[in-house]
This record gives sequence, C-alpha cells and structure tokens, in this order.
Amino acid sequence: MRPCLPLLLVSLVLPSGPALTAADRSPSPAPTVAERLLVRGLEERRAYDILGSLLKAAPSRMSGSPGAAAAVEWGRKTMEELGLETRLEAVTVKAWRRGTAEARILKSPKGGAAVPLAAAGLGNSVGTPAAGITARVVEVNSFDELDALGEKVKGKIVFFNRPMNRTYLNPFRAYGEAGDQRYAGAGRAAVHGAVAVLVRSLTDRLDPHPRTGMMAYPETGERIPALAVSTLDADLLSLRLKEEPDLKVFYRTDCSPLPDAPSHNVIGQITGTEKPEEVILLGAHLDAWDLSPGAHDDGGGCAQVLEALRLIKALDLKPKRTIRGVLFMCEEFGGQGGRQYAQAEARRGEKHLAAIESDAGVEMPLGFGIRADEAVVQAFQKHLPLVETFGMFFIRRGYGGVDIDPLRESGTVTIGLATDAQRYFVYQHGALDTLDKVDERQIELGAAAMAALACALAEEGLPAVP
Amino acid sequence: MRPCLPLLLVSLVLPSGPALTAADRSPSPAPTVAERLLVRGLEERRAYDILGSLLKAAPSRMSGSPGAAAAVEWGRKTMEELGLETRLEAVTVKAWRRGTAEARILKSPKGGAAVPLAAAGLGNSVGTPAAGITARVVEVNSFDELDALGEKVKGKIVFFNRPMNRTYLNPFRAYGEAGDQRYAGAGRAAVHGAVAVLVRSLTDRLDPHPRTGMMAYPETGERIPALAVSTLDADLLSLRLKEEPDLKVFYRTDCSPLPDAPSHNVIGQITGTEKPEEVILLGAHLDAWDLSPGAHDDGGGCAQVLEALRLIKALDLKPKRTIRGVLFMCEEFGGQGGRQYAQAEARRGEKHLAAIESDAGVEMPLGFGIRADEAVVQAFQKHLPLVETFGMFFIRRGYGGVDIDPLRESGTVTIGLATDAQRYFVYQHGALDTLDKVDERQIELGAAAMAALACALAEEGLPAVP
Repeated sequence: MRPCLPLLLVSLVLPSGPALTAADRSPSPAPTVAERLLVRGLEERRAYDILGSLLKAAPSRMSGSPGAAAAVEWGRKTMEELGLETRLEAVTVKAWRRGTAEARILKSPKGGAAVPLAAAGLGNSVGTPAAGITARVVEVNSFDELDALGEKVKGKIVFFNRPMNRTYLNPFRAYGEAGDQRYAGAGRAAVHGAVAVLVRSLTDRLDPHPRTGMMAYPETGERIPALAVSTLDADLLSLRLKEEPDLKVFYRTDCSPLPDAPSHNVIGQITGTEKPEEVILLGAHLDAWDLSPGAHDDGGGCAQVLEALRLIKALDLKPKRTIRGVLFMCEEFGGQGGRQYAQAEARRGEKHLAAIESDAGVEMPLGFGIRADEAVVQAFQKHLPLVETFGMFFIRRGYGGVDIDPLRESGTVTIGLATDAQRYFVYQHGALDTLDKVDERQIELGAAAMAALACALAEEGLPAVP
Repeated sequence: MRPCLPLLLVSLVLPSGPALTAADRSPSPAPTVAERLLVRGLEERRAYDILGSLLKAAPSRMSGSPGAAAAVEWGRKTMEELGLETRLEAVTVKAWRRGTAEARILKSPKGGAAVPLAAAGLGNSVGTPAAGITARVVEVNSFDELDALGEKVKGKIVFFNRPMNRTYLNPFRAYGEAGDQRYAGAGRAAVHGAVAVLVRSLTDRLDPHPRTGMMAYPETGERIPALAVSTLDADLLSLRLKEEPDLKVFYRTDCSPLPDAPSHNVIGQITGTEKPEEVILLGAHLDAWDLSPGAHDDGGGCAQVLEALRLIKALDLKPKRTIRGVLFMCEEFGGQGGRQYAQAEARRGEKHLAAIESDAGVEMPLGFGIRADEAVVQAFQKHLPLVETFGMFFIRRGYGGVDIDPLRESGTVTIGLATDAQRYFVYQHGALDTLDKVDERQIELGAAAMAALACALAEEGLPAVP
C-alpha cells in the first residue's frame, strides 16, 4: 500500500516540541554573541566532559578532606589549561569525619525480626560511645510534637519523620519546610534528654539511599548524634513502631567534628580590557557531600562555570570588564568559602557588579533568579531576549546562591541560574547524584546562558534602574 | 565553633530554584480546579505507576504485533478499572516483521579487521536474499551528493551518514532535517542501482544503540532493504572508509512487510452532563517501536491520558462536555489509527472542539503548542494562568500531534503538550527509552495540566476569537 507521504513528513518536521526560537531561525545574518555562544556550546558540548573530569579526579570531595584538596588541584589545573589567569585564595573551612554508622531494629522478645536501617551521619554530628546506644524510639513529626512530649523522650532516640510535602510545585519549598528536622533536630531533642536522633532523609522519593547534609548544635547544651535514615527505612521503622511501640534500636557511629582546616577557593578569570577592576563573577561550589559524586550538587555548576569561560575564550570575546570564575570551597558546611571570599583583602580595589551562581542542579535551565529589589529585576528585563536565546523563559526575583550571597553587602547583584528542579531531590546529598543523571545538552545550555549574561554585563555594566 | 545559623537557614529556605507559583502560595482560600488537580496529582503520582503497568503488560507493542493486542487489552482493562465508559474501535493497521538483521565490515585482504556493526531494520523495510549481500559501501551526506554520484553507487550499499545538527536549540528541527535519509533514503538510492542502504541512527548522541523508525518506498521502483546503524558504528564505518574506501560489508536481514492487520483504538470517557456530544479529546499512541519499551514514546503519553481522566474522576468533577481519552494505535507506521478515528462512522453526531495530545516525551512540561491561526492562539491566552499553575510557561503556535491532526479537517483545535525535549533523542525508537528515564513528578505535572485544560474547555467551550 502506498504510505501517506505528506502526513509522515509532517510528523518528522513539525513535532510537538517547543516552537523555534531565534537561534533556530537560520541563517542568521549577524548572529548575536548569545547565539554564537549557544551554537558553539551545543556543537562542542564540553561542560559534560569537564564534569566527568572532575568526578574522576575528585569523586569524593567533602570540605576539609583529601578529596577536596584534589578537587582544588583539579580546578587550578583545568583553569590553567583553559588559558585563564588562575590563582588560589586560601580559606579556612570546616571539617568532619564520617567514620561508620549503624542503626538496626533489634529482635524483639515478642518475635519481631531484627532489621538493619540504611543510615548515615549528618554532617557535623558527634558520635556515640564506642559501644553504641540501645534505646527505645519516639517518632515525631514536628518540634511542637517533640516539645509536647517533653520528658517522655528522655533516654530515647527521637525519630523525626515528617516527609517533604510533595504537593508543592517547587520542591525547594518542601525541602525548606522539612529541613529543620535535619538541621536543628538533635539540639531540640537533647533539650528533653534524648540520647540520639534519626532523621528521615530529605527527599520526596521512596528509595533505600540515606541523604546526608549539614546539621548544627546550639552553642550550649548536650550534643547528641544525628543519623539520616533512608525514606524507605523511615517508613518501615514507622510501621514497626505502630505494631510494637517499645521496640529498641541499636545505634552506633564514630563520626566526629574535626578542627578547622586550610583549603582554597579556586579562581580563574579573563581580565577586562577597559575596566579590569569591575568584576562579573560566575560561581559554583567545589565541595560535595562524601556520600555522593555530586554531579548535580555542585560538580555540574563548577563545570558550567569553566565551560562558560572556555566558550568566551573560544569565541575570542574580549570583555571590557573582568569575568571571573570562582569555584568556592565549603558551601555544604555553611558557606565559609563564599564568606571569606567576600571579606578577603584581595577584594580591595575590586568592584563586583554582579555574581551569577549555578547551584540548583544542572537540568534544563529555565531562567535567572535575582535577589534584588523589584526595580532591579525590572531593569534586567532588557536581557530577556538574550535569555530566550537559550530556550529559557524568565528573569525574576529569586535567590542568587549561598556562595555569592555575602557579596550583597558590598552592593553586588546576585543572580542564580534557575533550572527545572523536579528531580533535584532524587539526587541531592546521596548516592544517586551521578554523572549519568546529567544531560549533555541541558548542562551546556546553562553554561552558555551564564556566559552570555556575563558577557552582556561585562560589556554594558548593570542595567540602569530608572 | 558556632555555626552561622541565619545563613544556613537561608540556604535551606531560599535556594536558587524557580520562584513560587500560585500553587505554592498556601493556604489558598479557594483553590482553583487546576490547583486541586495539581495537588491531587503530586500527592498520588499515579501516572508513573500507570506507565509501569503498561510496560509490564506490553513491553513490546509494535503495530500489528501480539504485543500491540496486549496493549489494547491493557488499555481497555485499565480504563474500566478507572470507571470510565470504555470501548474499543476497530482499525486496520500496518504490520511488519523485524526478523533479524546483521551488518559487518569484512576482513580486508590488506589486514583491516572484521567488525560487526550495531544495526536494525527500519520499519517497513524489505529483506535481503537469504544468503545476504556482500558489497562495497558509498558514504553520502545528502540526496544531492547521492544524485551527483549517480551510476557510481550501482551494486553498492549506500551509507547515509548526515548527523542530526546538534547546534539547534530545538532537537525536533534537527530530527526533521536529518529524517529524509531514514524515510526516503532507500527509494532514492535504488534509483541509482544501489543494493541496500545503511542509515545513521536519528539521535544527536554517540552511543551503541541503533534507532529504528518508519521508512517508505516510492510507489514504483526497486525496493531495497534499509538498516539503521548506531551512531558510534556510523562514525567507525566512516573512519574505516577513509582508510580503505573499497572495504566490503556483509549485510543480511529477513525483515518483511506483512499484510495489514486488525487492531483497535482504545476509548474511555467521562460523558458530559450538558453537551455530551461535544468532545474534548485527550490522546496519545499505544503502539511503540519494538526495539524500545517506549516509556517516553509514547507509553508516558498514554499514562498521562489515563491519569488525567483518573484525576478528574477522583475530584468528582462533572464536566459539561465529554472528556474522552483515546489511546491510538499505529502512530509509528503513519498514523493509521488517528486517521481512521477521524473518519469513523462513530464520529457522526459528535463535535470535537479540541484535542490535546502528549507525544513529545514526558519530561518537564513547558507549555501547550496549538496548531491554529494566531487569532485562536491569542484567544487561548486566557488559559495562561491555568497553565502557569503547573510551572509551565506558554501557550503558543505549535504542532498538536500526529494522531489528532486528521481531526483538524472537521474544525477541531489540535493542541500538543510541549515538554523539555533536550533529551528526547536519547530515548526515541531505541533501547534507552526505559521506565527509569521517566520522572514521577514531571510525568504527573503533564497529566494534571492536560486534565486542567480539558476541564476548562469542557466547562467553557473554546475561547471566543474576537
């Protein structure tokens, strides 16, 4: 039978994808800088390779660890190979030893089976006595519930099990709302005499992987250990507790805070031809939690910073103002690298107009979020056509980034690359944040968009606020 | 040392993610239908489970195959379980036998090694003689190049090796431009006396997986076989040809077109309470290429159609007009199911106002594309707030879908769910289109958005064009 040619060709040529954007209308008589960056980036797709190189050189790079030092060395070497003016800036960072962690439901006299729980220390946690702790478990979903129990948690393990609210469109909101358990749960439980805490992992998925992340203790009070437990085992433990409220858990970890350690932020730049002292910063953080290769958080961001600079050099663009890439150390333990960068002696005589950070995962870039007044955000709308060149949709109020936030004190406009975050909490701080989860085109689009915005700001300065 | 509490809390609560949208501002005093669909969808996330169920019931479901019949039965059963008014509509579809395929570079007298090539028959291709073909290979990048060679390809295998243009922002454009080789290459090469064709797989990635897809022969002329070869092996063959232009390839396949076969479109609906004869159609296609589980193409679309209907029922919404889900058969072989649906006797007395198809992969939904005049697209902007509820950005001109396109003849507005397509050609028509590539939240957002738009149109009818 004769196939229906016209329909079939239509199906090849006119599929349901996004409409063509400026960069897809060819031949463009005089492509813009943004279009040239897009084409060059998509042709070469080096951001993915750069990320692969980082993950090979420093697969584990927790702040203060030998792996973090390897990452610094990788950053320095890679920047030099890219022909950037490269240097290290010394910073003092937090350090911590993960050691081992073990949690298991004990076999009960009534016949309940022993079950190991997938658990991992939360960053900054102290350890248990060497012999471990055996104790009953109290499950709570909020600090209010904990405080209402008061003395009843004494001598027990507090199990914080409030899930991330998966009905929010923005998963970061759910993360923010559930994060108090991880961050401050141990301190709050200790007030009532608890001996340790187990915290449901901060992911909106059910899986067997514990997610780590920063916790902190109040200045005063008992310091008790804190382990994250996988969401699957959190559900299991919760079910077992309903059947057998007096079950006991064995809990042991030898994790331990370590003294502050020396490390570096890694800096590579293209110095401005006309106003070298005025800086547009591109930033990401080099450290990553040790349970994770950190492909999205934030190896991918580092790769985008380097790729953005590589593209600018490859096109032989000569920015009037300095475009500087900074790979920050110690974001995960509280942003020490970013704070020390902002306060460093070397900042004297420099003026950072804007800083653009990629630290929300490297999936499809959707826009830029600016932490500034609405008037500034409005003024930035002049760059919307540039942003749309990369298939992105918006410039709006948002958060810049942990590492660049301290620059706001001296008037820098901080800007975050906003990406599709629907999968982000599959990856963050756990074993699933691997290279194969990163798409070559998506990471490249983010890198090229950062390059384009940096070039525009380096050329024109900040848009004038009326 | 005292951790810097305020900064750390900021990093939890205000990350670089997308700005909050309407659905994230809670408590909403009177949530819209769209907001209710969003929340219910994200809470239950059933689209992913429905897709998993399809892939288990009919992991291989090429048009005309026993697997396709299993998919029809799965669709019918699932729709009944969801409480939809369910029926099958008979259609006649194309069928084809893949059989086996083999292509290898032969050991050359000069010492070049024998190398097997990862190859697979293109849908609709005829086979070789049983003993196979041994022939020299001519590489071309376009039909112009082929035609210029003319008689020189006689007795040879033509190797179409033009890659998809990866510099386009919209990968569908690159697909459309490279697709002629796959679709019409065999017919064009036969004109000059070629004995077979090898076609570079239609993906913008380098990997070892051949991608299949539809090809067709002209009404007259020799029918020669067509195999797709993986992009990695296409590059390999191209390199080998540069070293040794007279190398030979052994090429054998027993694939074969089969007689047209009976099958079904699967229909399930919620009948309108006021205007039951007016229909808002939600569509996707049930068939998938047999080399692929078809998770994105288009099992995911089918799951979204079913999930959209499930959500509408779960919220006990009573649409004034009929909302009908159709799982079409035989999209991949030319859209037979869609054409026969549009022309069926059962369409008499029905008026399809709009049809919404999901067939561009089920990654992050970005908007809706409408195949209609600009005035219609403008009128649809009234639904932009609804669309933004799901974190989507636009309603604009675009393509509806192969299956629903024939409905345009009777005035139906066809609408395609537009998704982030950057990774789509990793998956399409090959082994990588598996369930693990689908994200539970992304697929659900698309389903809920389709449900919301269908409900709005069922309630209000088409927006008035000024």
